[in-house]
Amino acid sequence: MAVSTIRRVTVTPVAFVDPPLLNTVGVHQPYALRAIIRIEIDNGLTGLGETYADTAHIARMEAAADAIIGSDVFALNRIHRIIDDCVAQLSVTGGDGVAGMITTASTADRVFSPFEVACLDIQGKTLGRPVSDLLGGAVRAAVPFSAYLFYKWAGHPGATGGIDEHDRWGEAIDPDGLIRQAHRMIDDYGFTAIKLKGGVFPPDEEVAAIKALHAEFPDIPLRLDPNAAWTVDTSVRVAAELDGIVEYLEDPTPGLDGMAEVAAEAKMPLATNMCVVAFDHLKPAVLKNSVSVVLSDHHYWGGLQRSRLLGGICETFGMGLSMHSNSHLGISLAAMTHLAAATPNLTYACDTHWPWKFEDVVKPGALRFVDGAVPVPTGPGLGVEIDEAALERLHQQYLDCGIRDRDDTGYMQSIDPSFVNTSPRW
Amino acid sequence: MAVSTIRRVTVTPVAFVDPPLLNTVGVHQPYALRAIIRIEIDNGLTGLGETYADTAHIARMEAAADAIIGSDVFALNRIHRIIDDCVAQLSVTGGDGVAGMITTASTADRVFSPFEVACLDIQGKTLGRPVSDLLGGAVRAAVPFSAYLFYKWAGHPGATGGIDEHDRWGEAIDPDGLIRQAHRMIDDYGFTAIKLKGGVFPPDEEVAAIKALHAEFPDIPLRLDPNAAWTVDTSVRVAAELDGIVEYLEDPTPGLDGMAEVAAEAKMPLATNMCVVAFDHLKPAVLKNSVSVVLSDHHYWGGLQRSRLLGGICETFGMGLSMHSNSHLGISLAAMTHLAAATPNLTYACDTHWPWKFEDVVKPGALRFVDGAVPVPTGPGLGVEIDEAALERLHQQYLDCGIRDRDDTGYMQSIDPSFVNTSPRW
Repeated sequence: MAVSTIRRVTVTPVAFVDPPLLNTVGVHQPYALRAIIRIEIDNGLTGLGETYADTAHIARMEAAADAIIGSDVFALNRIHRIIDDCVAQLSVTGGDGVAGMITTASTADRVFSPFEVACLDIQGKTLGRPVSDLLGGAVRAAVPFSAYLFYKWAGHPGATGGIDEHDRWGEAIDPDGLIRQAHRMIDDYGFTAIKLKGGVFPPDEEVAAIKALHAEFPDIPLRLDPNAAWTVDTSVRVAAELDGIVEYLEDPTPGLDGMAEVAAEAKMPLATNMCVVAFDHLKPAVLKNSVSVVLSDHHYWGGLQRSRLLGGICETFGMGLSMHSNSHLGISLAAMTHLAAATPNLTYACDTHWPWKFEDVVKPGALRFVDGAVPVPTGPGLGVEIDEAALERLHQQYLDCGIRDRDDTGYMQSIDPSFVNTSPRW
Repeated sequence: MAVSTIRRVTVTPVAFVDPPLLNTVGVHQPYALRAIIRIEIDNGLTGLGETYADTAHIARMEAAADAIIGSDVFALNRIHRIIDDCVAQLSVTGGDGVAGMITTASTADRVFSPFEVACLDIQGKTLGRPVSDLLGGAVRAAVPFSAYLFYKWAGHPGATGGIDEHDRWGEAIDPDGLIRQAHRMIDDYGFTAIKLKGGVFPPDEEVAAIKALHAEFPDIPLRLDPNAAWTVDTSVRVAAELDGIVEYLEDPTPGLDGMAEVAAEAKMPLATNMCVVAFDHLKPAVLKNSVSVVLSDHHYWGGLQRSRLLGGICETFGMGLSMHSNSHLGISLAAMTHLAAATPNLTYACDTHWPWKFEDVVKPGALRFVDGAVPVPTGPGLGVEIDEAALERLHQQYLDCGIRDRDDTGYMQSIDPSFVNTSPRW
């Protein structure tokens, strides 16, 4: 039997420049944080994973990294158990990496995820097979993603150090700005679906924006995600206004009960990556009929195999499946692409923040967009390699930038002291 | 990339001598049928699978065997799709292989299963890893099975050709007979759990048998499975009488609604391999609260990966998980053992008919029972090899025995013309 014992695990936090993208909890800080996981086994093969980099999460990752030394990269059930136990013994709290928007995901699954991805990367390299082949095999040669539109400012207020230098997107605080943004994004990437991050302006403004996008792009499926910014009543009203215009409405209101109330009235499917973010939530969601589409995200659903399980559950219980995105780099895009390619019932274009960043830690060339879709890498493992110089540069950027936790609300309040993070807001 | 293209698939029906085991639909015929699947890929590696051998099932298997030539053994999602399409185009009906007791399983999943197992066998051989490593890795070194007691006759009525020669079990038609049977089986195999196939005699007799077994083996968990022979009222009454005596009651009554009525009254968990036998059944079972334990069976749940999905669904929706058995040979025991080993929440001893047969198609030595548990094979793939002479002999036995479909009811009626297959019977 080939030797596949983990002998070294490194956790490297990095920061990459992020534009001032607006959401209902605040605004993206000048840098987004990620942690890069590298696992090396006894025969020298290495695997890559990528995750959040908030302080508490890094502390958990480092403890988990120590705990899995000596494990076999094929023993994923045992590694999950080790990480469960490890996380349960730690007293750190917080560190969800998503600005407080997804607070009830499983901490153990979130910590396990990048290690599992790195182990699968090594498994694939051992076999000489792409990771998608470890997930039942790709059923599509390329994975469609959506154009992820954000309301945004022209630049970071008080920006220094040239962080706005690469922001070629300009301001978008109204329908015209969003349409310009959408055109540019579709021209550059060929996307065939559009998602708008909402919850930023009063609902009527966002309804007007969606209607303007619909008029401009009548054949492109649209989605609106206010991140639970609306009451049930507001959500029902918006749903009526957007009937026939959006393919699904994402997290209009907080909680399984509120979503169920909206779902009973809304004609379009309701999607979520806020009220169903862990396996514990699935049974109540099914019993309450809260949602009809789950947005999977391997970063907090416990990696690629457990995301497959989520996909199978969605199919079994008659729910649709789409894919959530957080600001991410190339390792995660590769992992998302392999997973989506091997998930027959993932039939919506996936979300990605990809166009919003210009830096990466992986060598260029492995990932590209063709007509809005990423061709599934066919090389061994994830099919991406670390660019050591880029990793070092983005790690130095992390050390220098001073940001240690994602805090969209705090950053917004530093600009607008009157800002309050409330949900529902309208 | 390694070449893993399927170039040859063979389906070989075999028959092995089976004792006259009684159940609610009749009695086991003198021979049990199985089909042995062999897949060979371009580099000469071969993989094994095992399934039912009823005429209609063989016809489907042969069509599917042709359809998957040229497929990659890692492309399991695509192979499932091919077999779905292939099965949908056939007009054959019936052929469930389980004497009409499990009629609503997915035909496509049942046909896919042995091909998937054979593909995983090849994947494991390609990697130099046991199949359990393709399922997340074993979490236990040995898999416990239960002593599977049957009411039985001393021999097949009118037996010729020496088919009773190896039946060392004798008659068991009352508590004393079952206790003798249990002692011999536990002495020989070391089982630490006991299951009784019921539905044969009036419920009071079977309750008395379970109580006698409990008195004789007070520390051994017991189960009773009448195969839906009882009405709801009878089931509720039996459940009250066996409270504290059985670890679960299996399929007391037919259907999800009947089971839900019993479940509302019974204090022990209700298990099933009759009313939840396909993914379609899971949502209604959850909504109705029909069962608390699902007995998985990779032969009709679509192979090992889809059985893993079933396991994950059971964990997610708060249901227990155990494993059903049909008369089977060594390829299936190996597959069941790898699956059970890699399923953390499979916490009951699995069922097996293993002690009831004395013939096999695999070379001896790979599988053994130690204290009622099968050590998980650690060699590449399933860890079992075909004994070519034995396969040829059991195939010839199939050709000679004249049985082409499992028919416990017809066989019983040939002995007792007054026998009627009814459910519920009492």
